[in-house]
Amino acid sequence: MSHEAYQECIDECLACIKACNHCFDACLKETDVQMMAECIRLDLECADICAYAVDAMSRNSPFASHICRLCAEICEACGDECKKHDHTHCQQCAEICFRCAEVCRKMAH
Amino acid sequence: MSHEAYQECIDECLACIKACNHCFDACLKETDVQMMAECIRLDLECADICAYAVDAMSRNSPFASHICRLCAEICEACGDECKKHDHTHCQQCAEICFRCAEVCRKMAH
Amino acid sequence: MSHEAYQECIDECLACIKACNHCFDACLKETDVQMMAECIRLDLECADICAYAVDAMSRNSPFASHICRLCAEICEACGDECKKHDHTHCQQCAEICFRCAEVCRKMAH
Amino acid sequence: MSHEAYQECIDECLACIKACNHCFDACLKETDVQMMAECIRLDLECADICAYAVDAMSRNSPFASHICRLCAEICEACGDECKKHDHTHCQQCAEICFRCAEVCRKMAH
Repeated sequence: MSHEAYQECIDECLACIKACNHCFDACLKETDVQMMAECIRLDLECADICAYAVDAMSRNSPFASHICRLCAEICEACGDECKKHDHTHCQQCAEICFRCAEVCRKMAH
Repeated sequence: MSHEAYQECIDECLACIKACNHCFDACLKETDVQMMAECIRLDLECADICAYAVDAMSRNSPFASHICRLCAEICEACGDECKKHDHTHCQQCAEICFRCAEVCRKMAH
Repeated sequence: MSHEAYQECIDECLACIKACNHCFDACLKETDVQMMAECIRLDLECADICAYAVDAMSRNSPFASHICRLCAEICEACGDECKKHDHTHCQQCAEICFRCAEVCRKMAH
Repeated sequence: MSHEAYQECIDECLACIKACNHCFDACLKETDVQMMAECIRLDLECADICAYAVDAMSRNSPFASHICRLCAEICEACGDECKKHDHTHCQQCAEICFRCAEVCRKMAH
């Protein structure tokens, strides 16, 4: 694994934490919160696994690759949910989630 | 700090993590999610600080006492919000939050 | 998945967090810290994934089963390292890790 | 609180997570691990509180200011320990910790 790929993945995960937490906060303030319930749930899942992946990669965990595989999967699911909603915070979050999923997948094999 | 007080506080925090996460999940499934938005937010805050407090106490962190003070405050706020709602998961969560707040406060000085 | 199996796995993970964090703290206080370096590292990994698994299960995460599979693997690795060392904290931690791994594995399919 | 100050603090905390986790990993690989025990412990504490502060700020937590106060204090302590050691990873970590502490302190009142 090149050191650059490593740094890139950490930075994508950090961007994803920020986007998901912002989307979580913004969804809870929407008028139709119910429609956003699944988005709220996945934003949280995604922010959590990204934080865990950042710790694993930056600590050189022997499990970093497995954790990145799971992270890719959860980012993908979060992106799929977010892109269903027209809110700017959802669309931006979806874009960042898909980018993060792609980079995590490269780390995963 | 007696070892017993320590263990008691860890166990209250662990119970509080379970209660808050369960309440979070149940709130997101309620028909009126909007009314539960603040509860969802505080359930998450409270589960997070309790997990952090458990780590700090069980690792003998030099900051355990400061972290417990913050934990008591957040548990109190979460309990105050939860007790406004009639759902069983909210009422049970409120009760556990208040108990956890009380035990954390004893650790905090 | 029966509700009981679920609760059992959450409780094993909570016990594992306590054991791993205690072992982490105790290892850092041993006279030969260098010999404990891998144990310190894995205690932390294991406490982290267990905390993440507890959150996932108690929030009814759609990824709970995948997370438990990863948790089983990391608990197993931590147990394997801990059991190499004669310190009581390591032996106890190994035992709890193996038990947690076993219960997590049942959740994972 | 200006939005810029907010973003700056999130970014300093993210940089601090990376630096502390890298220092943690590097300390565990040093030949004299025992001398690094306190540094290992504080690196972990500091990475944990920074991750928690990032979540709190990016979710607009009502407790963000209190969490930043605690974060400033722990960053300061971690920086104080790191700067005692000549290793490059420790010196760099100290520098980032002090900068993060300063920015967190501004958020805290």
